[in-house]
Amino acid sequence: MTAFKDATVNEIEQVMQQAWKAFHAYRKCSLKQRADFMRAIAKELENLGDELIKVTGEETHLPEARLRGERARTMYQLTSYADACEKGDWLEARIDTAIPDKTPPKPDIRKMLVPLGPVVVFGAANFPYAYSTAGGDTATALAAGCPVIVKAHPAHPQTSEMVSKAILKAAADTYMPEGVFAHVHGASFEVGKALVEHPHTKAVGFTGSFAGGKQLFDWANQRKEPIPVFAEMSSINPVFLMPEKIQSSAAELAKMYAGSITLGVGQFCTNPGLIIGMDNADLQTFINALGEEIRNIAPAEMLNPGIFKNYIEKRAGSLAQDEVETVAVAQKEPLMYEGMATVASAKAEAFLNNPLLHQEVFGPYSLVIRCKNIEQMTEVASQIEGQLTATLMATDNDVLNHNELVETVKDKCGRFILNGVPTGVEVCLSMQHGGPFPSTTDSRFTSVGADAIKRFARPVAFQNWSNALLPDELKDENPLGIWRTVDNELKK
Amino acid sequence: MTAFKDATVNEIEQVMQQAWKAFHAYRKCSLKQRADFMRAIAKELENLGDELIKVTGEETHLPEARLRGERARTMYQLTSYADACEKGDWLEARIDTAIPDKTPPKPDIRKMLVPLGPVVVFGAANFPYAYSTAGGDTATALAAGCPVIVKAHPAHPQTSEMVSKAILKAAADTYMPEGVFAHVHGASFEVGKALVEHPHTKAVGFTGSFAGGKQLFDWANQRKEPIPVFAEMSSINPVFLMPEKIQSSAAELAKMYAGSITLGVGQFCTNPGLIIGMDNADLQTFINALGEEIRNIAPAEMLNPGIFKNYIEKRAGSLAQDEVETVAVAQKEPLMYEGMATVASAKAEAFLNNPLLHQEVFGPYSLVIRCKNIEQMTEVASQIEGQLTATLMATDNDVLNHNELVETVKDKCGRFILNGVPTGVEVCLSMQHGGPFPSTTDSRFTSVGADAIKRFARPVAFQNWSNALLPDELKDENPLGIWRTVDNELKK
Repeated sequence: MTAFKDATVNEIEQVMQQAWKAFHAYRKCSLKQRADFMRAIAKELENLGDELIKVTGEETHLPEARLRGERARTMYQLTSYADACEKGDWLEARIDTAIPDKTPPKPDIRKMLVPLGPVVVFGAANFPYAYSTAGGDTATALAAGCPVIVKAHPAHPQTSEMVSKAILKAAADTYMPEGVFAHVHGASFEVGKALVEHPHTKAVGFTGSFAGGKQLFDWANQRKEPIPVFAEMSSINPVFLMPEKIQSSAAELAKMYAGSITLGVGQFCTNPGLIIGMDNADLQTFINALGEEIRNIAPAEMLNPGIFKNYIEKRAGSLAQDEVETVAVAQKEPLMYEGMATVASAKAEAFLNNPLLHQEVFGPYSLVIRCKNIEQMTEVASQIEGQLTATLMATDNDVLNHNELVETVKDKCGRFILNGVPTGVEVCLSMQHGGPFPSTTDSRFTSVGADAIKRFARPVAFQNWSNALLPDELKDENPLGIWRTVDNELKK
Repeated sequence: MTAFKDATVNEIEQVMQQAWKAFHAYRKCSLKQRADFMRAIAKELENLGDELIKVTGEETHLPEARLRGERARTMYQLTSYADACEKGDWLEARIDTAIPDKTPPKPDIRKMLVPLGPVVVFGAANFPYAYSTAGGDTATALAAGCPVIVKAHPAHPQTSEMVSKAILKAAADTYMPEGVFAHVHGASFEVGKALVEHPHTKAVGFTGSFAGGKQLFDWANQRKEPIPVFAEMSSINPVFLMPEKIQSSAAELAKMYAGSITLGVGQFCTNPGLIIGMDNADLQTFINALGEEIRNIAPAEMLNPGIFKNYIEKRAGSLAQDEVETVAVAQKEPLMYEGMATVASAKAEAFLNNPLLHQEVFGPYSLVIRCKNIEQMTEVASQIEGQLTATLMATDNDVLNHNELVETVKDKCGRFILNGVPTGVEVCLSMQHGGPFPSTTDSRFTSVGADAIKRFARPVAFQNWSNALLPDELKDENPLGIWRTVDNELKK
C-alpha cells in the first residue's frame, strides 16, 4: 500500500486560500453547471472501472459485490442530487411583492438560499464511496455552491486518492474554477483540527465515531466565528418487539433480525444494537431462535484492525457487565480480524442502571432487553439517547394501544420504522438520516436525500432590487421555472 | 415598580417538568388548535388595553405611538404565523411511495417536521412586545408545537408579567395543556444558565447583546446533549454609498440616513452604524449634510440606565480612537438618560487597523468611513464581520460595474437592501432576519417570518407505516390539504 504524507500547515493554508478564491467563482455557476459537474463526477467514478474496486477491496476487505453496489449507489446519489440541484426546490425561493400604499410602504423582498462557503468533509471508514470522498456530503455541498475540501480517511487513502483524481478530472472537463475541490491526507488529528479552525472553512460534514465527531463540533464552536458541523456519529438503533406482534411471529422476526445484525459484519451506522421486549415465553422463543441463527453465521473480516480491536473491546466490555448473559456466539472459529456475531441479553433494570449498556458496540452485536411490562419498555425508551433510527415490530393494535411508548420512541429518532429492519438507507427526498444528539450534532438536518443540501446554504433576502439586478432564481419571469412562494402562494 | 423575585432552582425544576409533560400533550394538538391558541393570545394582548401601554411606557420610556404600533405588529406576527402554522408549508412534508419490485424493494417513506421540545425564550430590552414575552420566538415555537418558557427581561418585568397572564388566559380559553407556557423572572445570570442547562430544554431563542447571546450559545454547546440556540446578537448594518449614486443625491441620502440613524434613539438591531464611501467632494457633501441634520435632532431618553450607560461608554470609546473625527453631535443639551445623536468619520486605514471600530455602538451613532477607491471599499467590506443587513445606495451602473464589492457585501449579510434604509423589518415569509456570525449564532435560520418556525422543529421519517397509522399530514388522502412533495413532485 502506498503511504501518504500528512498535509503540512503550509499546504493546508494554500488549499484553503484556493478554496476561498474558488468559492467566489463557483457560487456564480448556474444550477445547471453545478449539476453537470456532479454528473461528470458520477461518470468518472464509473470510468475508474475494476481497478477502483480492486484497490478498495484491498484497503477495506469489503466484498466485491458490496463495493460494486456501493459505487452504483454513490453515482446515483451524485446524479439524483444533481437533478435536485437543478430543480431548485431546495432554494426555498420566496417573493413578497411591494405594497407601496401601505403605511409605511411595504418594500419588495425576495429570498433564496446561497452557499455558506468552503466545506470540509471527513468521510467514513465503513462506506469508502457513499459517505467518503465523492459521497453524500461532497455531493450536497457542491450542489449548494460550496467548494469542498476532503480529508482522506486514513483507512482507505488510496481509494480516496483515486476518487479525488476522478473529481478533479470532472471539474476540469466541465470548466469548474480551480480549487472547487481539494484533497488532503491526514492520519494525525492536527490536520483535521487545522482544517476545521481555518477562517475560510464555513461548514463541516463528518461521518464516523462519537469521539471524532464531538471533537470537530467542539473545535468548530470554539472558533472566533463558530461554524455549523453536521456530524453523524453513533446510534444503537433500538427495536421494540410489541406484544401482539411477537406472539404471532417470534421465529420469523428472529430470522429477519439475525440478518440485519450481521449484515456487512454489523458495520453500519443503522445496525440494530438493542432489542427491547416483554419478558415472557414469546420473547424467549425469539431469543432462542435468534441465538440459533447467530450461531450459524460465519465470522468475517472487519474493515481494519482498528475497528476490529474496538469491536473486541466494546463487545467484551458489554458482556462483562453484571447481569448481562451471553445468548449466542457464532460457532465457527474466527480468523485474524474477523468479527464474531454475538447476541446477549439483560433485564431492563440492568440497562436502566448501567449507562455502558447504552453505548454503541460497532459490529455484529446486539443486546436483548427483557422488560416486566409495557411501562418498563416505555421507561427503557425514555432512557435511550438520540438515535438515527428506531423500529417497532408491531401490529396495528400494538401501535394503537401503546401510544405513550410509541410517542416516547418517536422522540428519540430521526427515522421511525414499522415492521422492517433499520439497515438499508434509501436515497430519496423523504429520507431522514439524522437524529437527536448523540446520533448527530443537529437533529434539524439530514445527510441523505436532497434536503441534505440545506446544511450548506443560508437564506439571503434581497430588498428593493430591480428585476434586472436580481438573480435569475428571483426574477419576475422565473426564467429557471422553479417552484417559488409568491405572496404566500406556491407557484411555478 | 413592583419587584419580582428571581426563580429558585426548585421553581425552575418544577416549571421544566411541567413543560416536559405539556410537550407530550401539546405536540398532539392539531395545527388548527395551535393556530387558534396563537390567535387567542393576539386577542388577549389587545384586551390588555391602555393599561399595558401605560405600564410599558413607564418601564421603557418608549413613546405611546411606538408602543401602540409595536403591539399591533406583535398581534400581526401571532396571527400571520398562526395562518402559516395551519397552512403547513413549513412542515416540509415529503412522500416517496413504495416500489416493491425494485431490488432491494423500496419501502414507503414519508417525512415531516415535528417539534423539538420545550423552548426557552429570552426577550429583548428594545422590543418589549414584538421580540419579548409574546414575540416572534414564542409565537414560532408554539406554532412548531413546542411549549415555551419565557425568562422575563429585567428591564420590563411588569410588562412581561402582564403579557404572560394574557398568554395563560388564552391557553386556558383554548383548552391548551397546563405548562404549555411558563414565565419566570431572573435578573441574575444563574436563572438563565439553569434554564439553558436543564435537560428538558431542547432549544433556545434569544435577542440581545453579543455577550449575552454568546454566553447562552456556549452553555448550550457544553451540555451533555448540546441544543440549538438561535441568538440574534449584534450588527452594525453597513451602508455602501456607491460613486454614481452619491454624485446625484448626496444631500437626499444624508436626510434619509439621519432619520434611520436616530429612529427610536438608534435602539434597533438594524440601526446603520457604519457608512462607507469614497473620499471625494460628493462624500464631503454627504457628510456635511448629515452633520447638519444630526445637529438638529433632539436627544431623547433611552430604554434604561444600563443601555444609556453602555451608549455613553461605547460612543466615547469610538470617538477617542486615533484618527476618528467627530462630525456632528446633537446641539440640544441632553437631560438625564437621553442619548445624543452623533456622527463621526475616519479613513479606511483607521478602520482596517482597529477592530474596536468594527463593534456595535448601540444607540444613535454612526461612523462614516472614507476610502481611497472602490478597491479599498471592497477591502473594508471584506473585513466587516457578519451582519443582519447590508445596504447599497447605488445606481444600476454602480451595481453592474462593481461586482466584486457587491458579492463581498452579500457574503456578509442576511438581508441585502438596495436604495433604502435597514431600519424597519417587514413581517413576511421572504424576510431574512438573521445573518452570519456574530449577527446571529446560525446564519441558516431567521427569527422573523414564518420560516422562523423551522428553528424549533426537526424532520422525522416514517418508514413502512400503514395509511391509518400515519399522522394526518402524511396520509394518502391529504386530509389537511397541505402542499407536499410526492414522488418528487409538489402537490396539494
